[in-house]
Amino acid sequence: MNEVRIIEVKQSVFASNDKRANELRQELKEKKVFLLNVMSSPGSGKTTTLVKLINLLKDEYKIGVMEADIDSDVDARTVSKMTGVEAIQLHTGGMCHLDADMTRQGIESFEDFDRFDLIILENVGNLVCPAEFDTGAVKNMCILSVPEGDDKPLKYPLMFEVSNFVLINKTDVIEYFDFDMDACKKNIAYRNPKADIFEICAKDGRGIKEVAEYIKKQMKDWRN
Amino acid sequence: MNEVRIIEVKQSVFASNDKRANELRQELKEKKVFLLNVMSSPGSGKTTTLVKLINLLKDEYKIGVMEADIDSDVDARTVSKMTGVEAIQLHTGGMCHLDADMTRQGIESFEDFDRFDLIILENVGNLVCPAEFDTGAVKNMCILSVPEGDDKPLKYPLMFEVSNFVLINKTDVIEYFDFDMDACKKNIAYRNPKADIFEICAKDGRGIKEVAEYIKKQMKDWRN
Repeated sequence: MNEVRIIEVKQSVFASNDKRANELRQELKEKKVFLLNVMSSPGSGKTTTLVKLINLLKDEYKIGVMEADIDSDVDARTVSKMTGVEAIQLHTGGMCHLDADMTRQGIESFEDFDRFDLIILENVGNLVCPAEFDTGAVKNMCILSVPEGDDKPLKYPLMFEVSNFVLINKTDVIEYFDFDMDACKKNIAYRNPKADIFEICAKDGRGIKEVAEYIKKQMKDWRN
Repeated sequence: MNEVRIIEVKQSVFASNDKRANELRQELKEKKVFLLNVMSSPGSGKTTTLVKLINLLKDEYKIGVMEADIDSDVDARTVSKMTGVEAIQLHTGGMCHLDADMTRQGIESFEDFDRFDLIILENVGNLVCPAEFDTGAVKNMCILSVPEGDDKPLKYPLMFEVSNFVLINKTDVIEYFDFDMDACKKNIAYRNPKADIFEICAKDGRGIKEVAEYIKKQMKDWRN
């Protein structure tokens, strides 16, 4: 199970990404497949966080994972090995983000994707461009890690505006960095007052259970 | 001196960014202005590193700084306050990178920019898109910080291919992260065998003097 497929996804030729994203979201709704789009800077801990979350969710839900990257397949291999769930690697061919059609290509490369309850898309590590393209996801999750600094929501507005919930990761090293947790939360709320915020440490698992419960609730609310 | 000007830069209407970049580079050569383009992920320590470097270079060289960001003017204010050199803030209007014309708009917004020996451009925090657009700089410097992980050169190939030198920052916290310095250097060399690599800690100043000397040498070699 440590061999993963690599899918080369191509940017959409359709002008209206929003329209294509809505169509994909509608189709996923009909098929009861919850698509979660995960975004962050490079190195904020997306893959480690997902591994921990998936291990808490996989008994209850059938999960598929799409790992998007410009190059390399290390993330899909890691997720596959550490969780046992089906993971594919999407290569963007240099592109800095995924659009709705690239996301669809990834989803349709799973055999019978409607057998999944939850498909998780790990987007390209980038706080700018992925926020500009609706992937068709039901919810957007953003991870911001302590070493990046508490001012990032001020500098990358759109990412925090489009994220339904934000995980503040690497809280175990907070004492080694000039990071003001209250200021960070205020900065996120300034961009998006509705965003739910969780403090986590993916490395030691702190806060992950609360996030898993939150995702379960989001999925239940969406299905009803 | 803590008030900074904010310049709204607009994406080029010219198809050939490479041509425009070469023209800008040629003009800067004639005017003996060395343009250094600094790229990294969000939160890798670009601004802190630049403040330390500028304070070692400013007695010998006349320096101007352009801080590119999607929003906010905190970086230009910080640089101006901490170094006393002239700093302007470039707003990209949501764009994830600077192209050669946006860079030119920034440079020309300085009064008599040819009075500078060195203009430093702090690009948008992003390991993908800025690498795709030649700004017209003489040299590209990339900062990778320890918390981001030693695998980033594998995942963001172009950034490391186009960078003439790479600073590995936040080495003071290396013991708290799973970061293999030798593996990181090998990964950088795999993408770009010619890249010079420096281990630094911008926070406590470790390694900054060596980088300042290296930049001086690059400037001297370029002028001759």
